Amino acid sequence: MVYLEIFEVIKSRRSIRAYKRDDIPDDMVRILIDSARRAPSAGNVQPWEFIVVRDQRIKKGLARAALNQTFIEEAPVVIVVCADEARARMSYGSRGVNLYCIQDTAAAIENLLLAACALGLGACWVGAFYEDEVKEVLGIPRDVRPVAIIPIGYPAERPHPPPKRSVEEITHYETF
Amino acid sequence: MVYLEIFEVIKSRRSIRAYKRDDIPDDMVRILIDSARRAPSAGNVQPWEFIVVRDQRIKKGLARAALNQTFIEEAPVVIVVCADEARARMSYGSRGVNLYCIQDTAAAIENLLLAACALGLGACWVGAFYEDEVKEVLGIPRDVRPVAIIPIGYPAERPHPPPKRSVEEITHYETF
Repeated sequence: MVYLEIFEVIKSRRSIRAYKRDDIPDDMVRILIDSARRAPSAGNVQPWEFIVVRDQRIKKGLARAALNQTFIEEAPVVIVVCADEARARMSYGSRGVNLYCIQDTAAAIENLLLAACALGLGACWVGAFYEDEVKEVLGIPRDVRPVAIIPIGYPAERPHPPPKRSVEEITHYETF
Repeated sequence: MVYLEIFEVIKSRRSIRAYKRDDIPDDMVRILIDSARRAPSAGNVQPWEFIVVRDQRIKKGLARAALNQTFIEEAPVVIVVCADEARARMSYGSRGVNLYCIQDTAAAIENLLLAACALGLGACWVGAFYEDEVKEVLGIPRDVRPVAIIPIGYPAERPHPPPKRSVEEITHYETF
């Protein structure tokens, strides 16, 4: 396995929506989740849960819940990332539920996406879906919120980088 | 500059709350923000804004707004990350404001923290602060929300890794 230097990974990571049929080995999936769980977490609460889906029928259900983004069901593996709101609420009340557990899981997702890129995999962060429908498809309990659907496979496309706002445009000094 | 392999960075990154007095060169700050802006963003909205603070009086104001976490004012550089809710709302309504712009900025923050670690810097993601007070200190407009305060400097401590939930504990297969 060839591992990449971090700035190379940060620069070359793309959202990949087309995948080869080849399956992803279990030990790669493990590396992805291991990378995710090393993200920082407010108060070390670690409100994240990961559901690894390979079952075709379930993937179809996820694609449907995600406004028929059919590339989801074409990936060999789909990881659904969830935030345990009960865990977040216990430590930090509403700020835990509405801010920290969203941030913690998002940081974990970014680690996962960078790890996927470093392993030569392609992945896409899907945020547009009906949460209740995803919960029903996956049997997710009431206090747990699905926050992202991430289809993963060997890339079958090489998309151009999207236009990004420049450092100058987004940087302020001392005050806004 | 020695750049690190990505899995090494993901594993070795710690929250650093004690800093040497040495200043951080501008080109390093630029690399941090450049890494942040390369994060994925729902619909490529890129709702992030970064305020780079070196002024001691302003850093003191931030520390006060952050429940007197005085290590904030001891860092040579503090970057305050903001989410532009107007930008998020325009594209995605309330889901943009309450979910996507929090996720996008969190992914950007994680990139920034990994980049800092790779550059030999120490940083800490501070989420506990009075948002209105931070907005006043920094003159942040109404539709922009401060989502994190990140003090950064050369590390003056080497904290032990916090206990993390295992891969097994957080991984589910096919359903929750």
